[in-house]
Amino acid sequence: MTDLFTTPEMAELFSARALVASMLRVEWALARALSRAEVIPPAAADAITAACRIELYDPDAIFAEATTAGTPVIPLVRVLTERVDEKARDWVHWGATSQDIVDTAMVLQMRAGLALLKRELHDIAHSAATLADRHRHTVMPGRTLLQQAAPITFGLKAARWLGLTVRQMRALDALRTDSLPLQFGGAVGTLASLGVAGLGVESFLAEELALPQPYLPWHAERDRIGTVAATLGVAASAMSKIAGDVALHAQTEVGELSEGAKEGKGGSTAMPQKRNPVDAMSAIAAARLAVALVPPLISGDHEHERALGAWQVEWVALPQLFRHTAGAVGHVRQLLAGLEVHHDRMLRNLQLAGGTLMAEALTVALAAQVGRVEAQQLVKSASARALRDGIMLKQAAVEDSRITRVLSADDISQALDPSRYVGSSDSFIDRAIPAR
Amino acid sequence: MTDLFTTPEMAELFSARALVASMLRVEWALARALSRAEVIPPAAADAITAACRIELYDPDAIFAEATTAGTPVIPLVRVLTERVDEKARDWVHWGATSQDIVDTAMVLQMRAGLALLKRELHDIAHSAATLADRHRHTVMPGRTLLQQAAPITFGLKAARWLGLTVRQMRALDALRTDSLPLQFGGAVGTLASLGVAGLGVESFLAEELALPQPYLPWHAERDRIGTVAATLGVAASAMSKIAGDVALHAQTEVGELSEGAKEGKGGSTAMPQKRNPVDAMSAIAAARLAVALVPPLISGDHEHERALGAWQVEWVALPQLFRHTAGAVGHVRQLLAGLEVHHDRMLRNLQLAGGTLMAEALTVALAAQVGRVEAQQLVKSASARALRDGIMLKQAAVEDSRITRVLSADDISQALDPSRYVGSSDSFIDRAIPAR
Amino acid sequence: MTDLFTTPEMAELFSARALVASMLRVEWALARALSRAEVIPPAAADAITAACRIELYDPDAIFAEATTAGTPVIPLVRVLTERVDEKARDWVHWGATSQDIVDTAMVLQMRAGLALLKRELHDIAHSAATLADRHRHTVMPGRTLLQQAAPITFGLKAARWLGLTVRQMRALDALRTDSLPLQFGGAVGTLASLGVAGLGVESFLAEELALPQPYLPWHAERDRIGTVAATLGVAASAMSKIAGDVALHAQTEVGELSEGAKEGKGGSTAMPQKRNPVDAMSAIAAARLAVALVPPLISGDHEHERALGAWQVEWVALPQLFRHTAGAVGHVRQLLAGLEVHHDRMLRNLQLAGGTLMAEALTVALAAQVGRVEAQQLVKSASARALRDGIMLKQAAVEDSRITRVLSADDISQALDPSRYVGSSDSFIDRAIPAR
Amino acid sequence: MTDLFTTPEMAELFSARALVASMLRVEWALARALSRAEVIPPAAADAITAACRIELYDPDAIFAEATTAGTPVIPLVRVLTERVDEKARDWVHWGATSQDIVDTAMVLQMRAGLALLKRELHDIAHSAATLADRHRHTVMPGRTLLQQAAPITFGLKAARWLGLTVRQMRALDALRTDSLPLQFGGAVGTLASLGVAGLGVESFLAEELALPQPYLPWHAERDRIGTVAATLGVAASAMSKIAGDVALHAQTEVGELSEGAKEGKGGSTAMPQKRNPVDAMSAIAAARLAVALVPPLISGDHEHERALGAWQVEWVALPQLFRHTAGAVGHVRQLLAGLEVHHDRMLRNLQLAGGTLMAEALTVALAAQVGRVEAQQLVKSASARALRDGIMLKQAAVEDSRITRVLSADDISQALDPSRYVGSSDSFIDRAIPAR
Repeated sequence: MTDLFTTPEMAELFSARALVASMLRVEWALARALSRAEVIPPAAADAITAACRIELYDPDAIFAEATTAGTPVIPLVRVLTERVDEKARDWVHWGATSQDIVDTAMVLQMRAGLALLKRELHDIAHSAATLADRHRHTVMPGRTLLQQAAPITFGLKAARWLGLTVRQMRALDALRTDSLPLQFGGAVGTLASLGVAGLGVESFLAEELALPQPYLPWHAERDRIGTVAATLGVAASAMSKIAGDVALHAQTEVGELSEGAKEGKGGSTAMPQKRNPVDAMSAIAAARLAVALVPPLISGDHEHERALGAWQVEWVALPQLFRHTAGAVGHVRQLLAGLEVHHDRMLRNLQLAGGTLMAEALTVALAAQVGRVEAQQLVKSASARALRDGIMLKQAAVEDSRITRVLSADDISQALDPSRYVGSSDSFIDRAIPAR
Repeated sequence: MTDLFTTPEMAELFSARALVASMLRVEWALARALSRAEVIPPAAADAITAACRIELYDPDAIFAEATTAGTPVIPLVRVLTERVDEKARDWVHWGATSQDIVDTAMVLQMRAGLALLKRELHDIAHSAATLADRHRHTVMPGRTLLQQAAPITFGLKAARWLGLTVRQMRALDALRTDSLPLQFGGAVGTLASLGVAGLGVESFLAEELALPQPYLPWHAERDRIGTVAATLGVAASAMSKIAGDVALHAQTEVGELSEGAKEGKGGSTAMPQKRNPVDAMSAIAAARLAVALVPPLISGDHEHERALGAWQVEWVALPQLFRHTAGAVGHVRQLLAGLEVHHDRMLRNLQLAGGTLMAEALTVALAAQVGRVEAQQLVKSASARALRDGIMLKQAAVEDSRITRVLSADDISQALDPSRYVGSSDSFIDRAIPAR
Repeated sequence: MTDLFTTPEMAELFSARALVASMLRVEWALARALSRAEVIPPAAADAITAACRIELYDPDAIFAEATTAGTPVIPLVRVLTERVDEKARDWVHWGATSQDIVDTAMVLQMRAGLALLKRELHDIAHSAATLADRHRHTVMPGRTLLQQAAPITFGLKAARWLGLTVRQMRALDALRTDSLPLQFGGAVGTLASLGVAGLGVESFLAEELALPQPYLPWHAERDRIGTVAATLGVAASAMSKIAGDVALHAQTEVGELSEGAKEGKGGSTAMPQKRNPVDAMSAIAAARLAVALVPPLISGDHEHERALGAWQVEWVALPQLFRHTAGAVGHVRQLLAGLEVHHDRMLRNLQLAGGTLMAEALTVALAAQVGRVEAQQLVKSASARALRDGIMLKQAAVEDSRITRVLSADDISQALDPSRYVGSSDSFIDRAIPAR
Repeated sequence: MTDLFTTPEMAELFSARALVASMLRVEWALARALSRAEVIPPAAADAITAACRIELYDPDAIFAEATTAGTPVIPLVRVLTERVDEKARDWVHWGATSQDIVDTAMVLQMRAGLALLKRELHDIAHSAATLADRHRHTVMPGRTLLQQAAPITFGLKAARWLGLTVRQMRALDALRTDSLPLQFGGAVGTLASLGVAGLGVESFLAEELALPQPYLPWHAERDRIGTVAATLGVAASAMSKIAGDVALHAQTEVGELSEGAKEGKGGSTAMPQKRNPVDAMSAIAAARLAVALVPPLISGDHEHERALGAWQVEWVALPQLFRHTAGAVGHVRQLLAGLEVHHDRMLRNLQLAGGTLMAEALTVALAAQVGRVEAQQLVKSASARALRDGIMLKQAAVEDSRITRVLSADDISQALDPSRYVGSSDSFIDRAIPAR
């Protein structure tokens, strides 16, 4: 069940095997850096790098041993040492501590994971932009506190989704630039075992892995991890917002949007007519799981130079957070790509409750004549009558002489036309689309 | 990495395969119940029960399909239907909805999981009771806010761990009794598709699975799940308290406790002398992961008759919560079973800071003569001198005529003997041990 | 804003002033217990108890000083000592530590808080039971994953709310019995400063405060607090479930329920027609705030004999948790007391989507003739046609010769009558009502 | 108790009164913007702006009414309307919705709150930089998993605190630039009631308040709020890291650091010798409370154009998050400003456990002669002997002929000198200090 509410690509990227492969990549780069810094002989580096191939290792065995050892690096280094000839053995893992390897390996995974998320978010932005542009004039009820409030266009809603998505892309980009540097400090973050060669090796290692160098090792200062976690949590929640909107619009009684149909999708074992919004559901579930993993990752309980517990939590929580964020993003991507828009239902819904969602619009029209305070009174009374008698607000208005004294039936009709009362929606859409 | 910070037994109990097996167990029981209620022919029931063997199913394939279908029951029922002869096909899964199967299957898993936790907690209680009894007179510093405060016995501390553990056992027991009933309501919790036979089938089904019957189906009222989740979270945190104490006592500078040594345990890739408290670390990590999973499981966002998102979260979060709670419990079990107690270090630590942790004891002795207010002044001044001049509190006291005016050197010695100042520790231990 | 999303009663019960009053109540009881145990002179006890009147203290000043002192008990005891004559001064707070006073004071507040919650839950249960009974035959759409699924009665839904509420009452009751004992252990939980009198004083103190005695002091074993917190979080979420249902039913497009109207309630500054579901909104907000406060209260990070940080968190988080749980409960109480049920809209909604929510019912009727597998095919096809052509499922069924071959038009009508397809709803209601 | 674990300045900045004042500031700016856009008469704007003075309002009354109204803006606008002459009444709050006012008012508060945090973080960075520089050569044990591991300098630790603090300053700065724009959209985010004047008013309003304009109104896209919340949570946790380190160093048995003494600070009601690390405790408590408030603020459950519950949660959670983050920051500021460094204890602690924290150093020295693999064996064996026999590692080394065969007694002494084994600590400090 660990593959529920994720994508196959992200599940693969954060598999146990992928972590071992990534740790080997770091040991590989370390050997090269040590050799370039003339700390170890080139032949040793060659032997070590040759042995850093994932095919030579059994990830399950390594993690089984990690339970007792306390870190997967101890068994990995043991096996790696066995895999090289005697001369190279002395130089395996030289200068590094377990956390250097695990942290840097996870940094590499996270960078790949962010790139993957970014690609999918790009597709979502494309879908949202298309919807925003196509539905500039698709009028529908806007709703606040789950009540119809005043009209909007579906294009405006899609533009808001677009803006939301674009901001997440930017936030992920900022992480790749700022928050994911090399980890390299040795036992307690001093690089002492490398003597004067420390900073040189650090610099070569960063180069080999194409990673930024931090000012200082960050074994026990995990704010960067906290920032990564929180940014993913916010992005997953952003997806949940879109999915939640679609699910509400897809309610039988609303019927304005539906997920694209697909063989075997969203059925029910008991109800043959059901077409469940499975992508929305999965995105919401994934986002909730992602958000739950944020708090343990923004903890400050990292003792001294390496934490007891708070660091190790990351080994489980970070991969799961990436997996579930990918789930939220991936399901919303599918959702928007196949989204069906039912303008007929939107129009019908505008007529519900006597069309009283146009009350503000009528108030504005009246206020120009009688002032806001009196206009609100008049419209409140007309709305109440419409709701009580089950008639349209328009009828209630034209039958109220206090209103017709200042507005003609034609004025009233115009005021109550939803498509004339969407304000700056179109301009907002224009703003959002280039904002991509 | 999904098997980090858990136990192999619990990981197995909550594997994808185990869930499929458990769902088959429910379909098996349902067929029997339907047959006993004369809703389906006995032959159909026989055919269905015969096909409910886990060997006939591919869990990975079922969960892969579940991603699109929205629930693992749809592919499971499809395959199960294929596995029976044509006559029985019409009766597979009759009367049930997907959620009946998933929820009841997870209830069965949770009951087994609770039994497993209970067994390990029992071992912990046994170890703690043994330590409490054996170390009734092992005096050591008690510490508040990480400062030495006044003496306790290690037996009292172990007795507190014992009480803590016993309360978790009771809380888990209460769950098994109250919070984990059958789920059976059909599509919307009315059992409508079974007509008048509904309650009869429900009753037989509960009997077949040896599960309590709830008053009502609980598809969207998840308070029971919330209670299970919170109880596990509290139990995991209880383990973290014990592990945290051990880790603090095991600090190089404290040295009062250490984890049992074991080949390959707690080493370091860089530091040959290191013996890391790996069980404590793992228990703490496991507990933090467990606690993180509680909030999404005590959500009330379960819409109408079945939730969109909040329910499905449970499929991932509940198994992980059980896994990590087991990790916390399992590591503390190992920890206490092999715990090494260093009384020499405890005695040495009692002498630190001039032995000023006996200040309260001296105050009490003085207060009997001069009243609390003056006694506190005198002892504060003697303590300050001891700390300032790096001498023992005893010396500072015997050199203070305001003190020696009312207490003889012998009185002072007695008052400053930690083993005479552990109050009701022994009685508390007696209370805790039978409390098991 | 600290009084948003709570009730005035609970806000008062957990005010700073109420905590000071509660701490004074504990000092009062301690003085009496010490006197009864003949540890302090009766006259001292009289003087101390006389000074334990809240009117004599300035709560703001006490908490201002607490910021530096680290606990509110230090300034409180200082002022209390000043308030008594010289002879009694030596006996103020004798034998206790700050945490004994704060914890026991909060236990007293929590017990009162639980009683308050219980009373309001009782009212909710009453309202829910009335609704369940009155609406036994009020048929409405049942919904899963926000899609119409099959019919239920509103009475059944109310019965589920009733069961949910009753379970919370029981859970709160269990807390009052099990989780809230006296705290009394002195500096490090040994009662050492009281010598042989310790257990006697403990027993008298428990009696004076009518609190259960725990086996052991629990300064750093906070599982009971975790259990209280989690139980409140689950109860708040239970309220959120009810509120969320009402909000969904109150949507303009659904219109099946609405909150009782009240002058000044739920209006909008911009939209005169709006009647926002303010109680539902407030209950949901309150519950989310309550749930957020659970994790810091189920932490196991309580070091040694008294925690540095994790304990002090409770001073803020527990009162807020009680306040917001009260908010959730209080708003749902108001909500149900005034709930308006619109059966006409329920009936109209049953006709939406061609009445295809009756598909399962038709399948059951057909299955009796042709078996489930074929029945599902036939109904799926008829449902699809109904949805595609915008006709009722009934019409699609009577126009399908494969169906009419085995079911008459009359059979079909009966099968498609929602009021005949609510299964065991009535029996479930009967089960729930006495379950109160 | 709402003022515990905060600072007076931040408590004031996020008081109920401050929110009302901030909302009045927004209504004031709105009146001016409307007048500049020629939507309302200048005289009306004058009348309204004149009435936007906090002295004319009763915040408690406004929030009491808000409980029923559902928002504080409704009562505020009512009173504001009463406060202006009849001609201006029609123009109060024109074009805005409640959420425009509350959100923008809170944006103004948050910007001020961020500036306040920044100032205090700046002081912390200054203290940390001073400590880093002053203690470049103050050698002490580095610790991993709470075990002594290898030496560091206290300057390096302070440099890590410095880097951590500087990153939080930068993260808060980024928020002020990116995440806190104007909110202005009217009822459903279209600015419809302002007709063609909408964008003009928006632009003037942003100018009046000196706030950035967002691309689109963001009533229901709350990722910015989530980012603010998470950034504060990470910053609070960063403070908790520093406070936690200090608390561990201040343990009686470690004694390397202590908080500055102050009259009335950190005493105990029972133990006269106690000097509790009250600032560390308070910072940790504050940070835990802050982190708890992050999850409800990164929710994606914002329905349609305005949420029911998830938005309103922010009214309580955001102010509390700012208050507690300020508490964490403020207490760490005090902590570092008065920090006492005990180099003598550091030196003594380096001698504990036979000085085996120098094992890695000796391994490095040996490895140059015999290779890493053999060196590790030799040092492991010497360390084990030192620990077993209670002698210093140096003695064990000079008594081991396998070691003395390749290293002279002098070589061994040099290798075991902690001050020679702090690697690149000094260079790291140099990197961190300008990084400010």
